[in-house]
Amino acid sequence: MSIQNESSYNNDSQPSENLSTDVNLSTDVEKKAKKTELPQPKNENSESGLKIAIAQENFMVGDVLGNARKMVELATTARDKGANLIIFPELALLGYPPEDLLLRPSLANRVKLAFEILYSVKDIVMLVGYPHIDQHGTFNSVAIVHNGQKKGFYHKQHLPNYGVFDERRYFNKGQNQVLFDYQGLTIGLLICEDLWQESPAKTLKQKGADIIVCINASPFEQHKQEERKALLAKRASENNLPIVYVNSVGGQDDLVFDGGSMVVDATGKIAHEAPRFLSQMLYASIRLDDKQIKVSEQKKMPIALGATAETYQALVVGLRDYVKHSGFNSVLIGLSGGLDSALSLSIAVDALGADKVYAVALPSQHTNPITVQDAQAQAQRLNVSFTVCPIHSAIDGIYHTLEPIFSHTPADITEINIESRVRGTMLMALSNKFGQLVLSAGNKTELAVGDATLYGDMAGGFDVLKDVYKTQVYELANYRNRLEETPVIPEHLINRPETNTPLHILDDHEKLDKILSLYIDEDFGFDAIIEAGFDKDIVKRVLTMVDRNEYKRRQAPIGTKISQKAFAKDRRYPLVNHWSLETPKI
Amino acid sequence: MSIQNESSYNNDSQPSENLSTDVNLSTDVEKKAKKTELPQPKNENSESGLKIAIAQENFMVGDVLGNARKMVELATTARDKGANLIIFPELALLGYPPEDLLLRPSLANRVKLAFEILYSVKDIVMLVGYPHIDQHGTFNSVAIVHNGQKKGFYHKQHLPNYGVFDERRYFNKGQNQVLFDYQGLTIGLLICEDLWQESPAKTLKQKGADIIVCINASPFEQHKQEERKALLAKRASENNLPIVYVNSVGGQDDLVFDGGSMVVDATGKIAHEAPRFLSQMLYASIRLDDKQIKVSEQKKMPIALGATAETYQALVVGLRDYVKHSGFNSVLIGLSGGLDSALSLSIAVDALGADKVYAVALPSQHTNPITVQDAQAQAQRLNVSFTVCPIHSAIDGIYHTLEPIFSHTPADITEINIESRVRGTMLMALSNKFGQLVLSAGNKTELAVGDATLYGDMAGGFDVLKDVYKTQVYELANYRNRLEETPVIPEHLINRPETNTPLHILDDHEKLDKILSLYIDEDFGFDAIIEAGFDKDIVKRVLTMVDRNEYKRRQAPIGTKISQKAFAKDRRYPLVNHWSLETPKI
Repeated sequence: MSIQNESSYNNDSQPSENLSTDVNLSTDVEKKAKKTELPQPKNENSESGLKIAIAQENFMVGDVLGNARKMVELATTARDKGANLIIFPELALLGYPPEDLLLRPSLANRVKLAFEILYSVKDIVMLVGYPHIDQHGTFNSVAIVHNGQKKGFYHKQHLPNYGVFDERRYFNKGQNQVLFDYQGLTIGLLICEDLWQESPAKTLKQKGADIIVCINASPFEQHKQEERKALLAKRASENNLPIVYVNSVGGQDDLVFDGGSMVVDATGKIAHEAPRFLSQMLYASIRLDDKQIKVSEQKKMPIALGATAETYQALVVGLRDYVKHSGFNSVLIGLSGGLDSALSLSIAVDALGADKVYAVALPSQHTNPITVQDAQAQAQRLNVSFTVCPIHSAIDGIYHTLEPIFSHTPADITEINIESRVRGTMLMALSNKFGQLVLSAGNKTELAVGDATLYGDMAGGFDVLKDVYKTQVYELANYRNRLEETPVIPEHLINRPETNTPLHILDDHEKLDKILSLYIDEDFGFDAIIEAGFDKDIVKRVLTMVDRNEYKRRQAPIGTKISQKAFAKDRRYPLVNHWSLETPKI
Repeated sequence: MSIQNESSYNNDSQPSENLSTDVNLSTDVEKKAKKTELPQPKNENSESGLKIAIAQENFMVGDVLGNARKMVELATTARDKGANLIIFPELALLGYPPEDLLLRPSLANRVKLAFEILYSVKDIVMLVGYPHIDQHGTFNSVAIVHNGQKKGFYHKQHLPNYGVFDERRYFNKGQNQVLFDYQGLTIGLLICEDLWQESPAKTLKQKGADIIVCINASPFEQHKQEERKALLAKRASENNLPIVYVNSVGGQDDLVFDGGSMVVDATGKIAHEAPRFLSQMLYASIRLDDKQIKVSEQKKMPIALGATAETYQALVVGLRDYVKHSGFNSVLIGLSGGLDSALSLSIAVDALGADKVYAVALPSQHTNPITVQDAQAQAQRLNVSFTVCPIHSAIDGIYHTLEPIFSHTPADITEINIESRVRGTMLMALSNKFGQLVLSAGNKTELAVGDATLYGDMAGGFDVLKDVYKTQVYELANYRNRLEETPVIPEHLINRPETNTPLHILDDHEKLDKILSLYIDEDFGFDAIIEAGFDKDIVKRVLTMVDRNEYKRRQAPIGTKISQKAFAKDRRYPLVNHWSLETPKI
């Protein structure tokens, strides 16, 4: 667990002695909860106010009790630093996204046990994201926990069921706003998607909220943090109240949660911001002062990451957490001498450390020896264990086996695929024997058009560049090389770009990737792409290839989502369908 | 297109001359539609009544205009046979399930064009399942089409978002009941899931419905037809009205729609029933006679299929339509000499015909020659092209290649996987060279516990037995052998069952499959399975294996769903999670 002390309270040298220990809950229907509380008049001159600890942390999917124990530890530390409120991300108790673990029959009991653990924490209010299960169904909720009691809870009202999200598969919709009074302030609660809608924040303001706390599990996409900032600025300023926004952090299968938790003041200005991609406790204080709500200001803001830097970070974190959480100690990469595997190697080393990364070159009789030298040079530069394993005899053996059947047939794609599948078989054999996770290095451009061999270069447990277009591969490699004096990726691989795109569709990578991105990420239709200025025949060819190769992608390994629409949960097409690209004529 | 003439009208010899061509629509909010119609008083003494054609047909996903043309053809034929109402299945215009095709920007325009095609049909009312797109969003709807006009429409109110269904990803909920008067009867409309809820049918009855028409796209599961019959009997008798139920038919990716369309009378008795798994027009008539609603009765009901027979049929149809619709001309199966590939071969021959099926045996130095003889005998019995391709030199080549790295390591699972992956490479090479779709033959038991090699025996475009437990493999093989005098599957493969379950967990296939079925299909927890009478250590071992092998299943080919919960869309688990089998102690 990584907790950094970046306390920025106005008076954070001493834990406050006069913490209000009363929480006054106001909700439309949860009257039972309301009744259990003594009303606490709003103290307009509260000196103390809220001392908030924002727990931007990585909570492990499925480990309900472990997550509760982690919360206890974080809450205790925060309290000891003077916090009177700690906020955990959306569904932190179960991890996000838990998928069908939400259907396990023992979940309700585990959540109950987890709350028993949470109840051991004293003298700090905890806002805990958790799955709430009762006779009305399952809800995506936040609990107000204080001194051994659940004082109230709020159920998420807007359940995303698009993109990678399937929340209506699991959750019932919440129907009510929930606010509570604490430390002289009325706090309104929201969960993730609720904030993207206009009305929930507005209703909370109308019901008397002084501030809004919104808990989130918002996965990384390029440029998403700017969107979040714009959203927070809009919601805060249109309702004239500060918003506390906590996001989780870390990789979970193909998603990466990128943190970037924030506090914005009532004008929409960012007052506090946690770094991206790092576990971090962010401290802030909010209090009523002369009828004004004052938000403390962070002394030093984290440096904003550029588009390429944040993408590189996401790829590192996604790979790191997949390897770590799936229990592998090391990874294995087949180095082709090309740019994709070279970039994947550098990402793997940044994610896991050189001692956890093994590289192998698998040259055949058709391999240019220079590519092996390139691979070796890069492995040496990165201090990675490197083996050369020529596959000539394996390929010969297969040809020999097939000879009686293949005689008199001309060579075609079959032979290219055989070579690729022999490499896949070799990598899997090494993985089976020595226990490393095989990484594949196919990029999004190749996967899109099907320029990849099933069970060949697509073999592996994790595809590092699965959601990275070829043009972005160049950008990322350039970015990484600029971070150190000696380039970690052979420069000539970047500077002498391949002259042909996959399958020789075009001689221009950027043009191909733009067509793909319009079609895949932005859901443009055939006509709209042509209107955007591309040649009809080329567009037809590219889109047809995308459509025809859905069956390959269905068997592809997972990889980190970085785009608006990554292949897999984001984009669900039937393998078999007779949709025509062009709108047919009657 | 296969249309059988099973007309069972009371007076079906002549097309009726006095068809009422007026439709009077009643709906809560669609007042605009209501206003466009002249009210038509309910004719309590109507002689003609409804002459219904129930179009149990296979509509191709994505082929909007093609489906419309098919509807025109079916409607014209039905009208010429005397029908005044034709009913198509749920979303028939786009096919089901269309998945993200519903997000394509040109869909709305294609649907509009499709209606132009439908408007050419005269003198019969068509109830058309289609995606309705307007300023309020996208709806899963049924249109009332008559003489070149859309007279009204109903939007599905209950959108399934569980199991294989993701309808809330695409559709808005309908809010209103829709009824219309036609031929002296008031017809209430429902779509699929609406009928599984109690209130929609009840509300239609209260609003004056004489009968309910429910259009469906209900995928096959074992025993589902009995469930549907029980449901229809309940809804009909509790509301005292007949129900017309149309289901689609045919395979779409991993789903099979099994038809079995029905008409039940007001007591819940089945008056008409279409055969399962076949395209078929089912005719029925319903009329008011002396203030009683009379439903015609089918002279000869289809023979009910037993549990094993319907499952075998589902596997045949699922494979047939996947191959046909994906454009392959033939399939290739590696025959191991075992029961799984033998059963897969017989299913393939039943689905496609012997001339479209190619078998190959791929013996290694470790293969018992008897298994090759068995494979050859079966191929001969089924008139299937058969090749033996010994893989000794391919395996030797790979060992030779790996020797410098593997020397001094003991043999383990690696070598078994290499052999399996060489077979996968061979099958894919033959597929690449000769254009056949590779079928894999892994069963559900193996996939569940991970006793399958990625890129080896799991290689292929379609896994025939993916959702079939090993115990069911025996049942299906027995069933198929009893259909002909000479067994199509070597009898000794069935009569001398393998003495060990996968990975030697148990010596009892039935016990293993029962544990798996409780865990996977019925969502039992660890404790509940033990309470059901199984040994704790064995349950722990089995369930751990299921959990650990999610990553293999994620890269598996698709295969026909036959169970309550098939691997894939039905069961969505994170690859990485730290859920513990046993509920942990605090």
